[in-house]
Amino acid sequence: MKKRVYAFSEGDGKNKRLLGGKGANLCEMTQIGLNVPPGFVITTEACLEYLADKKLPAGLMDEVREHMARLERATGKRFGDPANPLLVSVRSGSALSMPGMMDTILNLGLNHDTLQGLIRQTGNERFGHDAYRRFIQLFGKVALGVPDELFDAEFEAIKHQAGVAADIGLSAVHLADIGERFLAVVRRHTGKPFPEDVYEQLEIAIRAVFDSWMGKRAVDYRREFHITPDQANGTAVNVVTMVFGNMGDDSATGVGFTRNPGTGENEMFGEYLVNAQGEDVVAGIRTPKPVHEMATEMPALYAQLVELRDKLEAHYHEVQDFEYTIEKGVLYCLQTRNGKMNAQAMVRTSVEMCREGLITRDQALLRVNPAHLEQLLHPCLDTSHNPTPLAQGLPASPGAASGRCVFDADQAELLGRAGEKVILVREETKPEDIHGFFAAQGILTSRGGKTSHAAVVARGMGKACVAGAEGIRVDSRARLATVGEVTLHEGDIITIDGSTGRVYLGAIPTIAPTFSEHLRTLLSWADEAAHLKVKANADTPEAAKEAREFGAVGIGLCRTERMFNASDRLPVVVEMILAPDVEERKAALDKLLPMQRCDFQAIFTLMAPYPVTVRLLDPPIHEFLPDEHSLADEIDALRQFRRVAKGRAAALSALGQAVETDGVGEDAVAAVIARKERLLAKVRELHEINPMLGHRGVRLGITFPEIYEMQIRAVLEAAAECVEAGVAAAPEIMVPQVVDGAELERVRAMVDRLRQEIEASHGVRLDFKFGSMVETVRACVSADGLARTAEFFSFGTNDLTQATWSFSREDAENKFLPQYIGSGILEDNPFEVLDVVGVGAMMRMAVEKGRSVRPDLEIGICGEHGGHPGSIRFCDGIGLSYVSCSAPRVPVARLAAAHAALLNGG
Amino acid sequence: MKKRVYAFSEGDGKNKRLLGGKGANLCEMTQIGLNVPPGFVITTEACLEYLADKKLPAGLMDEVREHMARLERATGKRFGDPANPLLVSVRSGSALSMPGMMDTILNLGLNHDTLQGLIRQTGNERFGHDAYRRFIQLFGKVALGVPDELFDAEFEAIKHQAGVAADIGLSAVHLADIGERFLAVVRRHTGKPFPEDVYEQLEIAIRAVFDSWMGKRAVDYRREFHITPDQANGTAVNVVTMVFGNMGDDSATGVGFTRNPGTGENEMFGEYLVNAQGEDVVAGIRTPKPVHEMATEMPALYAQLVELRDKLEAHYHEVQDFEYTIEKGVLYCLQTRNGKMNAQAMVRTSVEMCREGLITRDQALLRVNPAHLEQLLHPCLDTSHNPTPLAQGLPASPGAASGRCVFDADQAELLGRAGEKVILVREETKPEDIHGFFAAQGILTSRGGKTSHAAVVARGMGKACVAGAEGIRVDSRARLATVGEVTLHEGDIITIDGSTGRVYLGAIPTIAPTFSEHLRTLLSWADEAAHLKVKANADTPEAAKEAREFGAVGIGLCRTERMFNASDRLPVVVEMILAPDVEERKAALDKLLPMQRCDFQAIFTLMAPYPVTVRLLDPPIHEFLPDEHSLADEIDALRQFRRVAKGRAAALSALGQAVETDGVGEDAVAAVIARKERLLAKVRELHEINPMLGHRGVRLGITFPEIYEMQIRAVLEAAAECVEAGVAAAPEIMVPQVVDGAELERVRAMVDRLRQEIEASHGVRLDFKFGSMVETVRACVSADGLARTAEFFSFGTNDLTQATWSFSREDAENKFLPQYIGSGILEDNPFEVLDVVGVGAMMRMAVEKGRSVRPDLEIGICGEHGGHPGSIRFCDGIGLSYVSCSAPRVPVARLAAAHAALLNGG
Repeated sequence: MKKRVYAFSEGDGKNKRLLGGKGANLCEMTQIGLNVPPGFVITTEACLEYLADKKLPAGLMDEVREHMARLERATGKRFGDPANPLLVSVRSGSALSMPGMMDTILNLGLNHDTLQGLIRQTGNERFGHDAYRRFIQLFGKVALGVPDELFDAEFEAIKHQAGVAADIGLSAVHLADIGERFLAVVRRHTGKPFPEDVYEQLEIAIRAVFDSWMGKRAVDYRREFHITPDQANGTAVNVVTMVFGNMGDDSATGVGFTRNPGTGENEMFGEYLVNAQGEDVVAGIRTPKPVHEMATEMPALYAQLVELRDKLEAHYHEVQDFEYTIEKGVLYCLQTRNGKMNAQAMVRTSVEMCREGLITRDQALLRVNPAHLEQLLHPCLDTSHNPTPLAQGLPASPGAASGRCVFDADQAELLGRAGEKVILVREETKPEDIHGFFAAQGILTSRGGKTSHAAVVARGMGKACVAGAEGIRVDSRARLATVGEVTLHEGDIITIDGSTGRVYLGAIPTIAPTFSEHLRTLLSWADEAAHLKVKANADTPEAAKEAREFGAVGIGLCRTERMFNASDRLPVVVEMILAPDVEERKAALDKLLPMQRCDFQAIFTLMAPYPVTVRLLDPPIHEFLPDEHSLADEIDALRQFRRVAKGRAAALSALGQAVETDGVGEDAVAAVIARKERLLAKVRELHEINPMLGHRGVRLGITFPEIYEMQIRAVLEAAAECVEAGVAAAPEIMVPQVVDGAELERVRAMVDRLRQEIEASHGVRLDFKFGSMVETVRACVSADGLARTAEFFSFGTNDLTQATWSFSREDAENKFLPQYIGSGILEDNPFEVLDVVGVGAMMRMAVEKGRSVRPDLEIGICGEHGGHPGSIRFCDGIGLSYVSCSAPRVPVARLAAAHAALLNGG
Repeated sequence: MKKRVYAFSEGDGKNKRLLGGKGANLCEMTQIGLNVPPGFVITTEACLEYLADKKLPAGLMDEVREHMARLERATGKRFGDPANPLLVSVRSGSALSMPGMMDTILNLGLNHDTLQGLIRQTGNERFGHDAYRRFIQLFGKVALGVPDELFDAEFEAIKHQAGVAADIGLSAVHLADIGERFLAVVRRHTGKPFPEDVYEQLEIAIRAVFDSWMGKRAVDYRREFHITPDQANGTAVNVVTMVFGNMGDDSATGVGFTRNPGTGENEMFGEYLVNAQGEDVVAGIRTPKPVHEMATEMPALYAQLVELRDKLEAHYHEVQDFEYTIEKGVLYCLQTRNGKMNAQAMVRTSVEMCREGLITRDQALLRVNPAHLEQLLHPCLDTSHNPTPLAQGLPASPGAASGRCVFDADQAELLGRAGEKVILVREETKPEDIHGFFAAQGILTSRGGKTSHAAVVARGMGKACVAGAEGIRVDSRARLATVGEVTLHEGDIITIDGSTGRVYLGAIPTIAPTFSEHLRTLLSWADEAAHLKVKANADTPEAAKEAREFGAVGIGLCRTERMFNASDRLPVVVEMILAPDVEERKAALDKLLPMQRCDFQAIFTLMAPYPVTVRLLDPPIHEFLPDEHSLADEIDALRQFRRVAKGRAAALSALGQAVETDGVGEDAVAAVIARKERLLAKVRELHEINPMLGHRGVRLGITFPEIYEMQIRAVLEAAAECVEAGVAAAPEIMVPQVVDGAELERVRAMVDRLRQEIEASHGVRLDFKFGSMVETVRACVSADGLARTAEFFSFGTNDLTQATWSFSREDAENKFLPQYIGSGILEDNPFEVLDVVGVGAMMRMAVEKGRSVRPDLEIGICGEHGGHPGSIRFCDGIGLSYVSCSAPRVPVARLAAAHAALLNGG
C-alpha cells in the first residue's frame, strides 16, 4: 500500500514536492538531531487523491492513527487523555511557500475534559481557557467555516459586560464564559455541536487543509504569481506535537539569530521569556530579555541553546533565524530559516563564515546580493522616526543629503564656499549650472527624468539627486518653491533621498556609509573570481581619485565635454562655437588646449598604470549654448530698458534739465544686445529637431576636424608629459557615435599625424590605444569594419537602447514608459535593465563581428547598464572584457562581476 | 611566330582584350558583312612587348607591310602611290573605352607627291591642301611631339596676312602655304625634315600609339577610374583605309540612327551631305539633309543604307547610332554603337523590337532603366531656351509647375478656387497649410530637407516641390520674398522644377507626361516577370484613383493622420488633444469617426478588390498643434491690443467722453487669450526633446486607446458598409512603431472586440488582415514575437534607417550628410538608397524571424526606398512580397521589380 504519512524521522528532507516545504524542513531538522517536537506529514499526493475523489483515501486515517500512537509513545502523553493530554497543531504546507494561505490550527485535541488536563499541566487556569477559546474560534473558522464576526461579536459582548477595554483585562472566568459562548456559536451556525471527539477534530482539520488548496485565496494566489502544477501541486498536512513554554520556571520561549543580523557579528542574538508562550511576546505583556542573560539565569538551558545554534550553522551553512520553546527543561526547536540581514551583516558574515570554513569563497560571494551593497556606499536616511515626505520625485542618484535650499548655481557656490550645506533646487538644470553641482550636497529638480542633465551629472559625481518632483513648483526668480500649501524660501533646510526619490522638510539625520574591512576583503575575493574588469566613468581628477578608492582598475569613460562646462571654460567654448570661420575657431580651441591637456595629465597620473579612456566630444555643440527662450527674453528686456532710458533722456532734455547718466551707456547696452542677438542667431541656426540623432559625436569630428584635433592633441601631449615625468600613463582615445569604419579611418589618420608630430617634438615614444564607441545599431552591424581600425570597443548602451527601441529616454520616461511597465507590456525599464532580446542581440552581433576581425579586441560597456548586476551577467556571458560605471557603483559591479563569472561558469 | 596583326576579316570580334574595343568592333562589323573600309589591328600584346623591350617587336613591321599589301589589293590603291594613293587612319584602342586618350591620325600616307593624287581624286584642290596641313599638324603633334602652339602661330600669321577672320576664308593657295610652313615648323622643332616616306610615317605613328599607353593622360585616367591591368592592358593600333565622301556627286557622308531616338518610331533617322567629308558638317558650311531625302535623291545608295540598317539591328538587337561614308557609289560603314535615346524612345523601341522578334521580353524589359521612366511620368521643363535659374533648392518632389506666388495657404486656396495656378511659397510648411497644398500647383520652401513636411506631403500628392531653397528669404507677413536683388511679390509668376531643385522667374513652358500604349504594354510585361507586387502609398480617394491608374495593385500605406489635417478636421483633432479627460476626448473622437469611416469607405471601394493597408495614427499628437513660438507671439500681440484698448478707454473716459466700442469686446479678447493660453500650455506639455523617438505610433494607441479604437472602428465599419454594398473591400489594419509583440497583442484584442461588435450589429462577416509596421530595430530583432500576432509586416525604412544610423534625417541632410557624401565617407545618402549593410541586415533578420513563425507571412516595404530601383532589387532578393511607393513612382517600381526578378533569378 502507498505510504501517505511520514514521521519527521522518516521523510526525505529534500522532497518538498511530496512533503511540502515546511514538512520537508521539519523532517530535515529532526534528522540532523535538532530536538523538534515529534510530528508527521501527510503527503501532497494524499491531498491530490482527496481532491480527485472528493473523499479521504481509504486507509489514510488508519495510518494517521498509527502515527498519533507513535507521538503518544514519544511524549508520554495521550491524545484525548484528560489526565495528560497530547495536543497537536495542524497546518498546511505546499512545495512553494504561499504566505497566509491557511491559518494554523493550534491546540487541537482540546475539549471539555482535556482542557482540565492542560490547566493542571500549566498550573494556569487563565491560559487554559484562553487556549481553548482560541482553538474553538480557529477550528470553527478554518475547519467548519464559521464566520469570524460571529465569534468577535460574542467576545465584544463579554468585554463590554466585564467593563474592560483590552483582552488582557479579562479573567479566567470571563474566558471560560467566552469558550462556552463560542461553542454555542458553532452549534448554531453548523447545526451540530462542536466535535468533542479528538480524532473527529483531527480528521475534519485534515480535510480542511486539503480543501484549502482549491480555496479562492489559494487559486488566486497561484494565478497571480504564475505558479504552475509543475512547481507546486497539492498541499501536505503537518501534524506536530504542541509544546508549552509556560509550564513553570524551567520552561521558556524565544527567538534567535545565530549571528547578529544588524552587524553580522558572530554572537548569538535574540530574546526569550521564562514561563511564557509565544503569544505573550506578541501581546506585549512582558518584556523579553536579551538572550545572553540566559547564560546566567538558566545556564544549562543556555548551553542547549548554544549547541542548537552550532548544529544549525554547521548544517545550513547560513545564519539561521530560529524559534524555540523550552518545556520543563527540554529545548525544542520549532522552526528555522535563513536569517534576513542588512547589507553590512551579510558582508561580515560572508567573510567570517568563509574564514571559519563554514562556506567556500564562491558561496561567500554568491550570498551577498550586489544591489544591496549600494546601502553601504551612500549615506542613507535614518527614517526610524517615520518622517512624512513633503514631495516625491524620481530616485535619480542614490544617497541622502540635507542642506539649505538655493535656487541658482551662483548662490549655491556662494553659500557652499562659505561652508554651508546646500541643496540646489531648480526646475531643471543646464550645463551652465555645473559649478552649483560642485558646491551642493544634492540636487532637486521639478522636471526631467532619470537621464535629465541633473540626474546624469549627479550620478557621475556621486551626489544625491531627486529629479522630476512634479509636485514642487520652482520659481527661481522669486527665489522660492511651493509644494501644495508649503512654501520653501531660500535658506530653508530640506532633505532629499536620492535612493527613494523622497523630499523632506528639515534635516533628517543620515547614516554615513561604511566601507568596512570585511567589504574590502569580499571585494578582493570578487576580483579574483571575476572575468570582467570593472572601470569607472569619471571626468575629473577628483572623480578619478574616488574611482580608485572604490577599486576601479581604470577609467572606461572620461567625457571631455564635462570639462568644457567648467565655468572658466564655457565662455571659451561659446567663443569657439560662434567663430565665423575656421581660423577664429582654431584660435578659441588654442585657448582650450592647455586646459584639457592639464586635466588629462592629472587624470592619467592619478590612474597610472591603469588605462583612461578619453571620449572625444560627443554632444551636439548647441548644448553648450544658452536656452533660446531665455536668450530671447533677455534681449527683449534689454531693448525695453533701452527704450525707457531713451524716453527718460528725451523727457529730461525737453524740460531743459541736464541728462543724468544711468551708469550704463547707450553704446554698452547696444553692444550687449548685438552680442546676444548673434548668440541667438547661432542658437537658432544650430537648432535640431532630434538632437539625440543629430550633429554630434564623430559627425562633429568630421565636419569640424579642428575640434577633434585639439582634443587628440591634448590627450597626446598630456601623455608625452607623463612619459617625461616617468608616469606610466595608459591613455585610450575613443570616438563616439560611429556608424561606419570610414569615419574611424579619418580620425585615426588625424591621430597618427599628431602622434608623429608630438613624438618628434617631445622626443618620446607614445603608447596608447585607439577605439570606438559602439552605440549605434549600424556600428553593431558593421563591427567587423570598425574593428579593422579600432583596437577596442565600448558599448554605449544608453544610446544603443534608444536607437534599438526608437525611444527617446527622457520622452519615454516622462510620457509612456511608466504605463508600459505598469500595464505589463514591459517587465522592466530597458534604460535600467539591459534589454537582452533587442540591445543584447545587437551587442552579441558586434562582439562576434568585431572579434572575427581582431580576436583580441578588448570590449567594454560604459552605458548606465554597466553598473546593473543583471546586465553585468549578460556582459560576462557574451565575453566582454570590462564594464565601466559611475564610481560609487564600482563595488556593486565588482561583486556582480564575480557573481556573473560564478553563475555563467567558464 | 606569334601573330601580332589581324585583318578585320580575321580578328575575333569578342576579343577586346587582344584587339581593343574599337578593333574588335571593326572585326565584328566586317565579319557580319558590313562594308567596313578595309583595315587591320595590331594587338595589345604587341604593345606590351614594345613597352617592355622599348622597341618594336621583331618582324612586326613586316607583318604590317604584308597587311598593307592586302589593303592595296582590296582598294586598288597603293600606299605612297602619287597616281592613286592609299591613305589610312591610325588610332589607338584598348579593351576599355578611354575617351580622348589619343587623337586619331587621319590621311596618313600623304606627302608632296601623294597630295597631288588626292587632289586629282577629289577634284578639290582646297580640300587636298587642307587635308595635308591637318595631317602634318596632327602627326607633328601626336607622333612627333611638336607643340600645337607652334602650328597655331603660323596659321594665325597667314590668316592675318590674308586679312580673313575665319578659316573658311582661306583659299587653296593660303592652305598650301600653311602646309609648307607646318613642314618647316616640324623641321625646326625636331631637327629633322617631316617624314616623306609613308612607311616611316606609319611606323612612327604605330610607336606613338604604343607610347601613348604610358603617357600622363592615360596613366592619370586609369588611376582616376580605378582601371586595373585586369580590365585593360596595353592598347591596340587600328589602321583603316581612308574613304572620302567628297569624291563627286556619287559620294556622300552621313550619320544615322536605325530608329528615331526621340520617339522610338521604327524609321531610319539621320542626316547626310552629298560630296562632303565629316568635317564639312562640323564646320557648318552646308546644311545636311534628312536621310529620307536620299530615297529620292540617290535611291540606289538609299537602298544600300536600308540594307545596312537591317544588318545592324539584326546583328546587334539594339538601336544603332552609325556613321557612314559613300565613296563613288560605295557605302562604307565607319562606326556603329548602341544608340542613346530618351525614355519614351527606349520604351517604344523595346516593345516594338520585341514584337518584331529582335529581342525577347526579358531583354525588352532590361533595356529600359527604371529610373528613366520618371521622365515620362511628370511634366518636365522645356529648357531648350536655357533659362537662368533664380535660385536653387533641393529637388524634393519631381515635376515642374508654374504659377503665381502666394505666401499662405488661405490665399492659395482663394486663388486656386478662382482657377488661378499658384505656387505656395513658405519658409516651411505645417500641417495646417494642407489646404494650400491641395490648391497649389507646387510648393517652394526656403527651409527644410527632403523629408520636411512640404517635401513629404508634396511627394505623397505627386505635386512638384522645391525645398530648402536657402537663397530665398520669405517674409510671409510682408507677403514677399527676396532673392538677392530680386523681390517676388504676391502674384508674380514663377516656375519650379522639383526634379532639379531649380526656381525660375516667369513661366517656363512644360512638357506634359505621356503614359503611352507602349509603356502600358511594357509594364504589363513587367508585372508578369516580377515577383514583387507594387502597391502605392495613398491617403485620399483622389490619390487612390491615381494609384490605380498607375497600375498599383493595392495601397500599401494609407496614412490616417493625413486625413486629420484636412481643414474641416483639424479643429476637431485639436479639440481631441485638448480634452481634459477621456470622456471629452471620446466626444471629439466621436466627431472624427464618421469622417474617417467615410474616407475609408471611398478608398476601399475605389481599390476593390485590391487590399488597402490603413496605418493607425503614427505622428506625435503635438504635430497637429500650432507652433509654440507663433502662439506665444499671438498671445503677446493680443495682450498688447487689450492694454492699448484699455488705456484708450480710460483716457476717453477721463476726458468725459463716451467710450466707443472697438467692435471687439473686452470679454471676447480675454476669451481668445484664454483659449490660446490653454493651447500654449498643451503645446508645452506635449513638447518632446526627440519627437522622432517620442510618444507616437502604438505608444499613443496604448496610452490613449480611445484614439486607436475610433480608427479601428472607422475601418471596420467602412468594411461592413462595403460588404453590405457588395463591394469586395480588402482592408488591412497596420500598427506603427511597434517594438514588442505585447503591443500588438493589446491592439489585436481591441480589434477582435470591435470586430465582434460590428459583425453583430451589421450582420456581416468581416474579412481583413492585421499587421505590423517594422520600423524599429527592436521590431526586427523580435520579429518572431511580432509574427505570432501579425499577419503581415511592412518595413518603414525611413524610420528604420534613422534608427539604424542614429541619424535624424532632416538634421543630417541639413548639417552633415552632404559633407559625408562629398568627402567619400559615404557613397550614397542612406535615406535615398537603401543601406544594404545596416538597414538591409535588419530587414533580412526580420524576414527570417518572421517567416520562421509564420511561413506565409506577407512582407512589404512602404518607406521611400520602396520606389528606388536598387533598393527594390534588394527587396526582391530577401524575398519580400511587395513594395509600396508614391503613386507616380509606381511605374518605375513595376519595371524595377521586373528587373529585380530577372537579375536576381529564382
